[in-house]
Amino acid sequence: MKSPTQPWQMSAAEASALIQARALSAEELTRSCLDRIAARNADVKAWVWLDPERAIRKAKELDKVQIHAGAKSRLHGIPFGVKDMIDTAEMPTTNNSPIYPDNQPSHDAQVVRIMKAAGAFVMGKCDTVEFAAGGRKALTRNPYDFARTPGGSSSGSGAAVGDGQVPIAFGTQTGGSHIRPASFNGAYGIKPTHNTFSWSGARHLSPTLDTLGWYGRSVEDLVLVAEAARMVGIDAMPDVSVKGLKVGFSRTHNWPKAEEGTVGAMERAVRLLTEAGAIVTDLDLPEPFADLNTAQHIVMNGEGRVQFLADYVQNYELLHEDFRKKVENFEAITPEKLLWALDLAAACRPVFDKLFGPELDVILTPSACGEAPFKPSETTGDPAFNSMWTLLHVPTVNIPGHLGPNGLPVGVTLAGPRFGDARLLAIAKAVAPVLDPKAA
Amino acid sequence: MKSPTQPWQMSAAEASALIQARALSAEELTRSCLDRIAARNADVKAWVWLDPERAIRKAKELDKVQIHAGAKSRLHGIPFGVKDMIDTAEMPTTNNSPIYPDNQPSHDAQVVRIMKAAGAFVMGKCDTVEFAAGGRKALTRNPYDFARTPGGSSSGSGAAVGDGQVPIAFGTQTGGSHIRPASFNGAYGIKPTHNTFSWSGARHLSPTLDTLGWYGRSVEDLVLVAEAARMVGIDAMPDVSVKGLKVGFSRTHNWPKAEEGTVGAMERAVRLLTEAGAIVTDLDLPEPFADLNTAQHIVMNGEGRVQFLADYVQNYELLHEDFRKKVENFEAITPEKLLWALDLAAACRPVFDKLFGPELDVILTPSACGEAPFKPSETTGDPAFNSMWTLLHVPTVNIPGHLGPNGLPVGVTLAGPRFGDARLLAIAKAVAPVLDPKAA
Repeated sequence: MKSPTQPWQMSAAEASALIQARALSAEELTRSCLDRIAARNADVKAWVWLDPERAIRKAKELDKVQIHAGAKSRLHGIPFGVKDMIDTAEMPTTNNSPIYPDNQPSHDAQVVRIMKAAGAFVMGKCDTVEFAAGGRKALTRNPYDFARTPGGSSSGSGAAVGDGQVPIAFGTQTGGSHIRPASFNGAYGIKPTHNTFSWSGARHLSPTLDTLGWYGRSVEDLVLVAEAARMVGIDAMPDVSVKGLKVGFSRTHNWPKAEEGTVGAMERAVRLLTEAGAIVTDLDLPEPFADLNTAQHIVMNGEGRVQFLADYVQNYELLHEDFRKKVENFEAITPEKLLWALDLAAACRPVFDKLFGPELDVILTPSACGEAPFKPSETTGDPAFNSMWTLLHVPTVNIPGHLGPNGLPVGVTLAGPRFGDARLLAIAKAVAPVLDPKAA
Repeated sequence: MKSPTQPWQMSAAEASALIQARALSAEELTRSCLDRIAARNADVKAWVWLDPERAIRKAKELDKVQIHAGAKSRLHGIPFGVKDMIDTAEMPTTNNSPIYPDNQPSHDAQVVRIMKAAGAFVMGKCDTVEFAAGGRKALTRNPYDFARTPGGSSSGSGAAVGDGQVPIAFGTQTGGSHIRPASFNGAYGIKPTHNTFSWSGARHLSPTLDTLGWYGRSVEDLVLVAEAARMVGIDAMPDVSVKGLKVGFSRTHNWPKAEEGTVGAMERAVRLLTEAGAIVTDLDLPEPFADLNTAQHIVMNGEGRVQFLADYVQNYELLHEDFRKKVENFEAITPEKLLWALDLAAACRPVFDKLFGPELDVILTPSACGEAPFKPSETTGDPAFNSMWTLLHVPTVNIPGHLGPNGLPVGVTLAGPRFGDARLLAIAKAVAPVLDPKAA
């Protein structure tokens, strides 16, 4: 493992180990991250709310907490970013909406409370696509090329972690809002199994799909948060070897959308994993899965109809046309269509889970269509390679490591069955050093 | 229709018609409800927060709003109650939890915002079982017999409407928390199709099950709220005649739990509907449905594991043992069990919907095991006849009208297919005068 020279370059797990050993203070880590932010924020614009003095004060307070043997969480003293449609009691939550410019929630979202109880603290709020759902884009720019999008809707969270500004940040995914930014920004990211993490305190778009996720700078960073969230099985993660690992390479029905960056990322991943002893075979998903992206779109907009009604009736003038259209059912989604979509997904879920067993450990599949596209004020990229997994409720992890034809990061996704999150993280831990030079 | 002598005796729809015609003011309605509350609250204890002066002030403000032809919502000037685990920005939300005794949310739940935008106003907060999930019972007593439970967890909301203290109130249902109190308190109530109403701002127990519902004093009251919530199809409700209506009487697999009150309520309903020209036939649900109550219990507790984690790590000492046990997975619910339950429900949903068509308009089924039981500090009754419908996501409506062997109300449930809510309300409107002497 390479030895970073500055604390901001460390993963949360590396910083945590030093904090536990008293070789690094939370204040030093925080000041280093703040230096990185100061150097980069004018260009990357990941943050919509940040108070450096407050962050340093919080870090100092945590440095003063007495350590009893074994009693300190591995997240103690670690700063994290929060997507600005997740409520925070000590800083505003704008949803990037003109309806909520100074909105100060009274309560932290449950995920923020869980992180705080583990000794972590909120560095600040990360820019988001409006309501994580449409309308205005984030102002955030891709840290690898400011002319490109960082992806979205978790734009600021993905860019902040990918750029070393904060080791951990939270995002959300309804279509491809969490994993795609991980790919575009060279970050690790997990979208866990649906409903295994409390959504309470985050803004809903489509409850059947809305899933909290988090970014880190290594698989171990993802594990740190999973421990605080008491992910099922995280205390007994299996030892996984890449040698003999049965990997199913799923191009999915969306493969025609794969660009040079993603084709290269997948070819490289298949080659490196095979060289490391994995048994990689092509995996064709059953035919009904071809309709899951269409179904995801219908569920998202069908359920989104009621999630913006309160703003529609109270704040119509300030509500972006994208959300007015949802309330007005602009796409004419009938109950029959919505039921078709919900029931197709429900029927595919157990079929997908049953693919796993003695013949298959994990699925390898694209994280995005390719490198991050240009025109960040117009697009956050295409969620084609993410939507299906969100609708299936299955855990996915983005592994960075490949660079596309323009030198921009392109990740690959590992997917497992529902509630197989801990095992998927164990597999990701074994796979990451094979694919990511920084993890080798 | 009987002519009530006091405004508090009116349904919301009756009061609304008079308000629209300027024959009644919101202030008069509110003062009358407050008189009823003053006379009854020491015994019924439906309210945990109520400020009569504030309510009168709100009503007066609404009376001053200018009417333009056709511009005033039918909810204008109507007070409503809110279960105390649904956030309100102008009054506390305690969740009946010692963790939240003075908890003041910054925001109204979306349902409260929608009601306010329609010109209704919050009368006060109604007592609830702790977190609508377990732990402490509400202090509320059954208005028909103070020694009995009003049901729960929507204890105060159901009792307040059943007792004429407020014409409309909101509750929630995860097992049988909404329809059972409707039955026990002689109120009308609807639990709509899952995810057709925003839950945001209410406290989660199990997102796959959690469903907002509302109580009224007539079917038309339920329609008033459905209009404000833009229920699909509510603007074009069909005309339904009981003559020729195809009713399937489903005892369900839980029929052995039916007590004298419920057996009598069902026999009476079958007889009266048949006399009115309906074609009532026995309907046996397919065998897999026998496991749905077990599945509901597994989903509720499996998903509940993560919904109390934030309180567990931050407020352990004040968190009731019921919720600690959920976090600690006291029932040892494995991922396999939870998947079995989720997938069984998903498979049964389209099977249930397909029962409806030319041969079946609506299902008639029990709302509770019988009359409200004694020992309100120990029990809220058995949700055996409700849990299945919650898990199936289908709309259910409670119709009062029957009195059990002890003179206490026992309702019957009408159930329809998913998204058939508006048609179900139209059927309920036709059925209510047959079953409920007060609606005749």
